Amino acid sequence: QWTLLDWKPKRPDMLTDTFGFGRIIHDGLMFRQNFSIRSYEIGADRTASIETLMNHLQETALNHVKTAGLLGDGFGSTPEMSKRNLFWVVSQMQAIVERYPCWGDTVEVDTWVSANGKNGMRRDWHIRDSITGDTILKATSKWVMMNKLTRKLARIPDEVRTEIEPYFFELSAIVDEDNRKLPKLPDDKSTTAAKYVRTGLTPRWADLDINQHVNNVKYIAWILESAPISILENHELASIVLDYKRECGRDSVLQSHTTVHTDCNSESGETTLHCEHVLSLESGPTMVKARTMWRPKGTKAQETVVPSSL
Amino acid sequence: QWTLLDWKPKRPDMLTDTFGFGRIIHDGLMFRQNFSIRSYEIGADRTASIETLMNHLQETALNHVKTAGLLGDGFGSTPEMSKRNLFWVVSQMQAIVERYPCWGDTVEVDTWVSANGKNGMRRDWHIRDSITGDTILKATSKWVMMNKLTRKLARIPDEVRTEIEPYFFELSAIVDEDNRKLPKLPDDKSTTAAKYVRTGLTPRWADLDINQHVNNVKYIAWILESAPISILENHELASIVLDYKRECGRDSVLQSHTTVHTDCNSESGETTLHCEHVLSLESGPTMVKARTMWRPKGTKAQETVVPSSL
Repeated sequence: QWTLLDWKPKRPDMLTDTFGFGRIIHDGLMFRQNFSIRSYEIGADRTASIETLMNHLQETALNHVKTAGLLGDGFGSTPEMSKRNLFWVVSQMQAIVERYPCWGDTVEVDTWVSANGKNGMRRDWHIRDSITGDTILKATSKWVMMNKLTRKLARIPDEVRTEIEPYFFELSAIVDEDNRKLPKLPDDKSTTAAKYVRTGLTPRWADLDINQHVNNVKYIAWILESAPISILENHELASIVLDYKRECGRDSVLQSHTTVHTDCNSESGETTLHCEHVLSLESGPTMVKARTMWRPKGTKAQETVVPSSL
Repeated sequence: QWTLLDWKPKRPDMLTDTFGFGRIIHDGLMFRQNFSIRSYEIGADRTASIETLMNHLQETALNHVKTAGLLGDGFGSTPEMSKRNLFWVVSQMQAIVERYPCWGDTVEVDTWVSANGKNGMRRDWHIRDSITGDTILKATSKWVMMNKLTRKLARIPDEVRTEIEPYFFELSAIVDEDNRKLPKLPDDKSTTAAKYVRTGLTPRWADLDINQHVNNVKYIAWILESAPISILENHELASIVLDYKRECGRDSVLQSHTTVHTDCNSESGETTLHCEHVLSLESGPTMVKARTMWRPKGTKAQETVVPSSL
């Protein structure tokens, strides 16, 4: 049961987080950091955007590695990874948002890692309202290693495994993961779906990270750029599944495709939407595929499902 | 002298800022808030972007009003303003950046307000490194009141003046303000200047604030979108002056013009740049005019000028 995770940390020094940099909890297996939602992180609805929440995921992942003393010279790479020119790339990401926090709210982000097969790592997150404890977001992600020089995927070297294995914690933030395959191309045969496209998307200088690559969160912004504004205005993003296929460099020119499917619940009469998204280079190759689910604004998220994998 | 501002606050409760929400200091005349720079606020240079710093200015301005107990139902409006459908709009902004902070740095932002003529308000900021005390940014801005219904500028009602006047603090963050007129249109006669234009800029849903207007900081992003990437890559923004002319709504389509002037210092041989920018609606009217100064990356900012107006 999830509530078991509220064990008190053993050492009192683990309790303090005076500067908001986060701290290790739960016998060293979990990292927790609080964020107060700032005015510039909210939108027209007065609530934080999905990008803000995704940024908090990134920040806690990096701070987890840093606080564990495992930060090499790269962005989230361990010392043994840095020696070998290896860095982590995200291959999949999945998030369920139950509620969007408001300006002044403080959210508490928990994150932990576990193995994903022989050559992958998994990272999960659980964001709660720091006052009420209510779930705000649950997320999981899959990571593989890439060689900085060859740009090829790499196996996890034993020395790296030895560094990270002590932190592995087998617990799934999301019970019912969405493992349905994402469509390769926008489904042109569907006659009921509305299709939208936005072309000529290019990274701004400010979108590049220290590896001169576009930050993962930026892809979500681009994906949503092709969604019609009426969806963003009347619905809120309930969940997103992302498959990252290819790196995006500073000179890439992209296009964003969105297919909107309207689903009517025959019992409640409520209209929900789901969308399929493809972000591709204008020259053809797919960068990211995604599926998003939307609920009308003001609707309550479904009853929280309690993860039972512990 | 600036250093006089480091007076100790009188009440011990003013010393605590456990949750990073900021606090009133200096006999109630100043507001101070710390921000730790997060991984998603830095770019390819590993330093915070100008937009991040501008966001911190916005956040402290709003928190100042909130902490002073002067927040009505609007975004920075006082109760007497809310009653009359008035809100603040920024008409001018000026910032000098001495150094860009890195991920993990904590910056300390001080802000205060003063009168600006009969019907305006002025707000200044001073950002320092919270450890070394070194200046990071100094900024000043001018604000006027607008009526939410008529969209016309309004005089400051006496009741509002009574609310805000006790907080007025006559001190200029920037001694040598740049009061040179900004060119109305890109100077097409100059043969030595390089001209750049970026068309078809539209607000994303996420760019709209709670008034369904584009946030002030977004204008800076748009202005920089027409600057060639080589400038952003090899230079850092040393200062910016902005004249805000018109509101931008959700359906606006804009274009961004940048004119680049290269200045060679005959003594040092160092090349600096200054740019003139015009952001306009594609239908014609100017939204924002700006001037930016750039120094080569790795150059030290000029010796800090100590404000002497206190």
